[in-house]
Amino acid sequence: MNNNLLSKIRDKSAVIGILGMGYVGIPLLIRFASQNFKVIGFDIEEEKVNLLNEGKSYFKHIESSCIEDAILNGFESTSDFSRINEVDAIIICLPTPLKENNIPDLSFVINSIETIKPFLRKDQALSLESTTYPGTTEEEIKPHIESIGLKIGEDFFLIYSPEREDPGNPNFNPKNIPKIISGHTSSCLKIAEELYGSVVDEVIPVSSLRAAEMTKLLENIYRAVNIGLVNEMKIVADAMDINIHEVISGASTKPFGYTPFFPGPGLGGHCIPIDPFYLTWKAKQFNVETRFIELAGQVNTNMPKWVIKKVVEGLENHEKEISKSKILVLGLAYKKNIDDVRESPAVEIISLLSEIALTVDYHDPYINKFPKMRRYKLDKSSVELTEKNINSYDLVLLVTDHDIYDFDMLKKASKLLVDTRGRYKKPCSNIISA
Amino acid sequence: MNNNLLSKIRDKSAVIGILGMGYVGIPLLIRFASQNFKVIGFDIEEEKVNLLNEGKSYFKHIESSCIEDAILNGFESTSDFSRINEVDAIIICLPTPLKENNIPDLSFVINSIETIKPFLRKDQALSLESTTYPGTTEEEIKPHIESIGLKIGEDFFLIYSPEREDPGNPNFNPKNIPKIISGHTSSCLKIAEELYGSVVDEVIPVSSLRAAEMTKLLENIYRAVNIGLVNEMKIVADAMDINIHEVISGASTKPFGYTPFFPGPGLGGHCIPIDPFYLTWKAKQFNVETRFIELAGQVNTNMPKWVIKKVVEGLENHEKEISKSKILVLGLAYKKNIDDVRESPAVEIISLLSEIALTVDYHDPYINKFPKMRRYKLDKSSVELTEKNINSYDLVLLVTDHDIYDFDMLKKASKLLVDTRGRYKKPCSNIISA
Repeated sequence: MNNNLLSKIRDKSAVIGILGMGYVGIPLLIRFASQNFKVIGFDIEEEKVNLLNEGKSYFKHIESSCIEDAILNGFESTSDFSRINEVDAIIICLPTPLKENNIPDLSFVINSIETIKPFLRKDQALSLESTTYPGTTEEEIKPHIESIGLKIGEDFFLIYSPEREDPGNPNFNPKNIPKIISGHTSSCLKIAEELYGSVVDEVIPVSSLRAAEMTKLLENIYRAVNIGLVNEMKIVADAMDINIHEVISGASTKPFGYTPFFPGPGLGGHCIPIDPFYLTWKAKQFNVETRFIELAGQVNTNMPKWVIKKVVEGLENHEKEISKSKILVLGLAYKKNIDDVRESPAVEIISLLSEIALTVDYHDPYINKFPKMRRYKLDKSSVELTEKNINSYDLVLLVTDHDIYDFDMLKKASKLLVDTRGRYKKPCSNIISA
Repeated sequence: MNNNLLSKIRDKSAVIGILGMGYVGIPLLIRFASQNFKVIGFDIEEEKVNLLNEGKSYFKHIESSCIEDAILNGFESTSDFSRINEVDAIIICLPTPLKENNIPDLSFVINSIETIKPFLRKDQALSLESTTYPGTTEEEIKPHIESIGLKIGEDFFLIYSPEREDPGNPNFNPKNIPKIISGHTSSCLKIAEELYGSVVDEVIPVSSLRAAEMTKLLENIYRAVNIGLVNEMKIVADAMDINIHEVISGASTKPFGYTPFFPGPGLGGHCIPIDPFYLTWKAKQFNVETRFIELAGQVNTNMPKWVIKKVVEGLENHEKEISKSKILVLGLAYKKNIDDVRESPAVEIISLLSEIALTVDYHDPYINKFPKMRRYKLDKSSVELTEKNINSYDLVLLVTDHDIYDFDMLKKASKLLVDTRGRYKKPCSNIISA
């Protein structure tokens, strides 16, 4: 066992290097800094590095004062990856998106490993937090470390500990969310226990890196499948003229065996639409099927089209053609009260509607300008949300039900309102559930 | 509004008639009787009627003393359906199974309606509690009542209120499980509120019979799909040499957004394998799909075969051929601590194993003799569970993990033990997870 690194963690002289200053890395650096660890935040984007060094947050749900406090505790950000040799524990919080055809894209992680490889040294620990398929840490990271002569479990420590960030959730944070940890050897696990145990209330060791990788996937697969299920149930209930939201609130009164999930216009965010396919890809190598994941993907991906069908039908029932209609979409973020548009179904909906409607505008209190995205290029800005302006549209489509919206006013001001979130419980002549 | 029936319920002079003295009807009659209602229990099986009138329970999880207490409060059972004219509220607790090809079999309910039809009269309420597809109460029951000149909502009251019985669950009973209620008219709902409100802590009114029918289906579809999902995840994890039970307990430490379900040898009981297909059947009439339900059905139905594959592989790895092997199956009930074999995967497993193994015996502390079943005819009795006897089998297959079992002893005594319930967490040379 390596007592050098262990004692450095214990007396908090260990320097923590976090790779990726994003939704996961920032809350984690704040937590480590608050526990008096010196933290260096690595990112390739100079703009982010500069903002952080000025004590500025670029996320709506994270206060700049938290970054300022971290700086007072020695935090600094850099794009100079050679400084990896200064740190004792390297924590990788980089995205793991999908390529075309739902194939895992590990390039952010692998490229970072190749970048830091020349600066790795004895007595360091490396922990991967990115969500990925079982086997990644051992198959994709371990060989790089061994190739430079480091002995894992003796003078280098390899850890997998999945992030469980839920941006904007006020009840949970990196301190009070129990953290799954795993190590390639028992010494690696010991280091993981010490490292995360010094900043998290409860660490949960599992028996292998693989089991820890699978744990995170199971959590997100459970969500993706249940959202898919309730979206399919919405379509069935709608056909039978039953309000799915009434049914869900009825079922939620069962005191055991039922947990509500809510249908919506589709699935967004960086995790739920993407992570499950990491398992699908890996399962193929073992000749086993992940049919629930694939079905959930299909159902959830098709929801924007279903919403548009309801929009077109709603207009027709009010003697309006879609091609002559002005439409206002409310909410661009993938969930309420945040400013994150990653995989947001609103973007797909606006893009599809723009092809068939006369005018499509949007409003989002947190997103002034339609962001540049890989697959979509739309030059739009958030419009004003006055009663007069709302009333000038033929149809208002509620996609993201930010709590800041005045739902009574929206109902009054809209000629016709399509509600994809079940915000309006009571039947009303100008409101359509979708 | 009919004040006659309402006041009879209020002053508890209303007589309650329950049709079907089974898993749902018996706890319900006990509850009504305990609240000083006179209850008549109807059943076509004379044997059940006689036992009840002698104060005897025929279910392991229901004490005979509860029936005796009900008798003291005026309870009696009969197979004479003409006595329906004596009762004020008729509650139907009859099975709704499936015919071949997963088609709803409403014959128990419809036949009972036809039987009681000549004895229906003004100022009665009829409540259906059986799980069924949205539309059943209005399409299949209402016409019968109207055909004899009764006016629903004026002099007769039609209710749907799904049962939520969980046999053997010590924490919940008909008093403390909130009860969904619905009525064909607002007067019907008012009667439902009064009727169930006098015996249940909390009643939950929903807006239509259809919505109430769908509510119960959603609850059971959620369970069927999540069990299907985790069964598929078990197969995937097993292929990757990951223990799914470790992964589930890891994921269960997430304090939000995850609810554990547990894989098993297949799906049993009267509800979860059956009810979802009621929606599937109805959805076809509306040209909408229920793909999650169908997939869950496929995955869960195939689990017994997967278990047998693991049994065969396990024997082969220990140099034993299945055709020369003696196998002991532990547990026949569909879930632990009860004596109910309806749809139990153990039955399917024993039946399939009997075709390929030398000998297949079973033990279940609650089921002495293999019961007669529609699809299976096996002449077997529960064998003795001594260490010596256990050790005489080549393989012990744990299908139902009754808490009464001595799991340490089983492990010690078994040459080879296949565990379908994740009871044995630690790897062990004579234990195989399946």
